[in-house]
Amino acid sequence: MRHQLIKHIRTTAFEQGDFTLASGKKSTYYINIKKVYTDTEALNMISALILQELVKHQYDYKLAGIELGGVPIVAATALAFETNTSYLIVRKETKEHGVENLGIEGTFTKGERVILLEDVTTTGMSAVNAVIKLRGAGLICNTVISVVDRKDDAWLSLNRNNITLIPIITVDELMEKEEVSI
Amino acid sequence: MRHQLIKHIRTTAFEQGDFTLASGKKSTYYINIKKVYTDTEALNMISALILQELVKHQYDYKLAGIELGGVPIVAATALAFETNTSYLIVRKETKEHGVENLGIEGTFTKGERVILLEDVTTTGMSAVNAVIKLRGAGLICNTVISVVDRKDDAWLSLNRNNITLIPIITVDELMEKEEVSI
Repeated sequence: MRHQLIKHIRTTAFEQGDFTLASGKKSTYYINIKKVYTDTEALNMISALILQELVKHQYDYKLAGIELGGVPIVAATALAFETNTSYLIVRKETKEHGVENLGIEGTFTKGERVILLEDVTTTGMSAVNAVIKLRGAGLICNTVISVVDRKDDAWLSLNRNNITLIPIITVDELMEKEEVSI
Repeated sequence: MRHQLIKHIRTTAFEQGDFTLASGKKSTYYINIKKVYTDTEALNMISALILQELVKHQYDYKLAGIELGGVPIVAATALAFETNTSYLIVRKETKEHGVENLGIEGTFTKGERVILLEDVTTTGMSAVNAVIKLRGAGLICNTVISVVDRKDDAWLSLNRNNITLIPIITVDELMEKEEVSI
């Protein structure tokens, strides 16, 4: 299924040219991950592959997704669980109205373990900031699962903060030439 | 199932007190809808109830969800379709990086019909703005489905823009006293 997802992303969402990324960096390619997670065929593959990673984690945990791309991904993955569950959304900015919050939406209690889902990791700073928010709220988070890692040292920024990065796919795999089918 | 969802929202997400809403208006109650859509039991009920509305629409359409609350809702509803589909996300603000867009994420072609999903409608302005974005991108959108309508004239703002509001639940239903079970 990983190969199917790689093929899907390569065909529908991998664009070459001159791009400026969210971080301000220049890049010769762009992964339009929004085209991927707004397609239910791809979203089902993503949640199935994340579930395959999650079974390796024996402890109880809650899933969280980073706004915006992590939201459909965390919702789809949580919906794929066999039993009902609840998940968290980590906001990019804290919007204070209605009730106070810490930039985290959903229900949680201090001390719960959280596995964070992200659509694309580049420098990893967005994931680091989200983990800092979760930890600031009293949650334990040491694991980030990223659908596509662009291999721009996200693992390093995450490791410095005692976070393990688990990429489902790396950009190398998107760039490799497709095998010739005979 | 509507009654089950009403009971769920009333129990987990209906808060009384003094609140300032996103619109700046004061309110004596707050519907913490994020607690609802981050719970997969409730999210499954929501998508099932939206599907019941959608079957009434005979024409081909694409679903769209308004950032942020509409995102898990549109993803869950699209995932509940029998066949693979793709959906759209309407951003609150247009963030221009990578590739240009019109504040709409996902794949579409001009002239497609869109049904827009929103978590809560109050004045309806967020939904009206999203429809204006969709129309500006050449899409046809005349229908908004809202999980909870707070009955603060959203229907009026929407009707003025030739949009029909379909609420799954209204705030009156949340406020009604629970029937005594004998």
